[in-house]
Amino acid sequence: MSFEEVGRMFLELDGETLLHQIESLGKVGEDSSGGRTRLALSTQDGYARDLLVQWMRELNLDVQVDPLGNVFGIMYGEAGASSNALMIGSHIDTVINAGPFDGVYGVLSGLAVVRAFRDAGVRPSRPIIVAAFTNEEGVRFQPDMLGSLFFSGGISLDQALAIKGVDGLLLHEELRRIGYAGRNGYRRILPTEYLELHVEQGPVLDRKKIDIGVVQNLQGISWKRIEILGMANHAGTTPISMRSDAGFAAARIVVFLREYAERYEDMRTTVGSLHFSPGLINVIPSKAVLTVDMRHPTNDALVEGEEKLLAFLDILREEESVEIQVESLARFEPVQFNEELAGAIEYAAKKRGFSAMRITSGAGHDAQMLARVCKSAMIFVPSKDGISHNPAEYTAGEQLLNGATILLDVVAERLLCNGRAQ
Amino acid sequence: MSFEEVGRMFLELDGETLLHQIESLGKVGEDSSGGRTRLALSTQDGYARDLLVQWMRELNLDVQVDPLGNVFGIMYGEAGASSNALMIGSHIDTVINAGPFDGVYGVLSGLAVVRAFRDAGVRPSRPIIVAAFTNEEGVRFQPDMLGSLFFSGGISLDQALAIKGVDGLLLHEELRRIGYAGRNGYRRILPTEYLELHVEQGPVLDRKKIDIGVVQNLQGISWKRIEILGMANHAGTTPISMRSDAGFAAARIVVFLREYAERYEDMRTTVGSLHFSPGLINVIPSKAVLTVDMRHPTNDALVEGEEKLLAFLDILREEESVEIQVESLARFEPVQFNEELAGAIEYAAKKRGFSAMRITSGAGHDAQMLARVCKSAMIFVPSKDGISHNPAEYTAGEQLLNGATILLDVVAERLLCNGRAQ
Repeated sequence: MSFEEVGRMFLELDGETLLHQIESLGKVGEDSSGGRTRLALSTQDGYARDLLVQWMRELNLDVQVDPLGNVFGIMYGEAGASSNALMIGSHIDTVINAGPFDGVYGVLSGLAVVRAFRDAGVRPSRPIIVAAFTNEEGVRFQPDMLGSLFFSGGISLDQALAIKGVDGLLLHEELRRIGYAGRNGYRRILPTEYLELHVEQGPVLDRKKIDIGVVQNLQGISWKRIEILGMANHAGTTPISMRSDAGFAAARIVVFLREYAERYEDMRTTVGSLHFSPGLINVIPSKAVLTVDMRHPTNDALVEGEEKLLAFLDILREEESVEIQVESLARFEPVQFNEELAGAIEYAAKKRGFSAMRITSGAGHDAQMLARVCKSAMIFVPSKDGISHNPAEYTAGEQLLNGATILLDVVAERLLCNGRAQ
Repeated sequence: MSFEEVGRMFLELDGETLLHQIESLGKVGEDSSGGRTRLALSTQDGYARDLLVQWMRELNLDVQVDPLGNVFGIMYGEAGASSNALMIGSHIDTVINAGPFDGVYGVLSGLAVVRAFRDAGVRPSRPIIVAAFTNEEGVRFQPDMLGSLFFSGGISLDQALAIKGVDGLLLHEELRRIGYAGRNGYRRILPTEYLELHVEQGPVLDRKKIDIGVVQNLQGISWKRIEILGMANHAGTTPISMRSDAGFAAARIVVFLREYAERYEDMRTTVGSLHFSPGLINVIPSKAVLTVDMRHPTNDALVEGEEKLLAFLDILREEESVEIQVESLARFEPVQFNEELAGAIEYAAKKRGFSAMRITSGAGHDAQMLARVCKSAMIFVPSKDGISHNPAEYTAGEQLLNGATILLDVVAERLLCNGRAQ
């Protein structure tokens, strides 16, 4: 039996407490419909933070809050307070009418890892930081993933604090109001590794009946708004050959994008919004406005997809005699997660006899911000029918515990590397 | 020289008065933007009717108003008041922000025909009735073409009077308010022939530079509302193969309808309105609602088009895993105009050296209602770029007079058949 195996024998996941904490946090902001709403820095978010901090204190963690309200619970390791920390994080804010697991699962599984160390009386070789980042969802304050963006140096404190919410309230005032404006002298502890456990928010693992998703990368995103101008005319009197139909041109874009995505693996294209003007049954549309959401795990493929779309718009301009304007709404490059960590996750799943597959994250996560500054990876567990941002979001308790077990195993593997159980 | 040619020598179109009356009537309900709004039975419609009646009286016509407010100006012929009348009609109500010619041109050209007889001191062999039908446009009261529908026996008086406008006001009360509720004892004079002169409201004559359109038929119309239900899902996390995308299914319908229309001559299909729900850039549409406007001059082709559409919806249900519901909003069979009258129009154009072509009316007109009860036909003149229902509607004065000249010639040909000039 190796040192590692001896160490892991001491570390046991307290599944009951983890599921209980997920359930308890899920009640904060819950309404009679079964959904919950904890918009970032709302009063409900404040209550949820209070609960989290209470649980962190129960585990004797050193609780720190940075100036943007990111909450950290630190279990110091043998080697001292700030060297080579391993961070486990996610968020506890939600969208409107959310499910119970998104974000919460990752943060509370971090606590479960720390609890396993404490229960076994084992001190990690390096510090473990459990993090809950502010405003991941981005529903109230834009951009989303703001806390982790700030933490990883992507936005200045002043800029972040000055953001105004969709309700007109200022971020820094709301931070103060709920009591989570951390002290200015706060010294950031940058981890060397970051792990995030999350429900998939997509149907792949559920449909394939796979226990563990080893997230190897995160798609790049290109958002565009396309406006097409044609000529309004009478539906009955205008011959097909004389039309300049903005609606038909828009429909061709929708079909083009889908067919393009079907030809190229891992390409995802969506037209989620499409509007015709004047929108009358017997008038050829003079205007159509649509949005394009295009995603791919590699930037080259995303660039090529964007170019092919623009080339298709040129064909449309010619064939349909329409004017077309394209506006870029957002553009994020893909994120490659750390191969060493991904391999460790895969290895841990194999040891446990869990089925596992490499997977690409289609949604954004705090891990993509941390990937800028340290080795990062994510673990996914199945989410029933891929439903998320909805009270119907569901993952069975057993599946949740599978994921937390793998997280614990990966951490144990790395932080018991000298077998220094106390 | 034949009798007819002698007769026509006396009959000369007073183009100046016709154009002046079109201009004057166009000022009623005009706003500063250059458009005019005379919704049926509105105060402005009342003013326009008053002007029309005044002009009818100046021509010594017997003015009669039926119980639905249809206005008739009768020039009695030699053979008596009610035998074998020839009717020239259209309407003087408008859509919101209308152009100057739609409807008005046909009614005032009727007065011009009567004026030509009067100026020449010639009495027609049979009565001429100039008609202005109530609520042709159907913007305020549904259905459209209501006055002519009632006149031709397609709706009962009680039903028609009880119609409530989009503003909530009752048709019979509005009729009384503007003073055009005709007496109940009114005895309808059914004509044996009906002619309607109209701007094309489509681009064919204008693009082909043809003077006169001989309207041989009027398209049948099928209006449908299609609702597609798919599954809302995350645009980033849902693989293409696992989607049930209501928006994509809708786009395929738009493309299918266009391609179908391109394959079958005289088939016109339009999707004028299309709406996605929830309409978010990063959510696959769970619902799409669209309208279909399908038209063809023959009922067989229209039925086939409807069947092909339904068969395509079955393919979509299968391929896209969507639910689709279809609702019929309207269905009008095509109208075949009278060949004898069409031939007479063609002959008159040829005699005058005007270019002419057979044409199908894509829009609805009062003539289609009259076609139920008597020989009917229509004459079209070019409309610049086919623009109608818009202040930019334009036909040059010369082109308007060409049409009125052909109308006069056709009437003269028929009502001077015994050469009985007085």
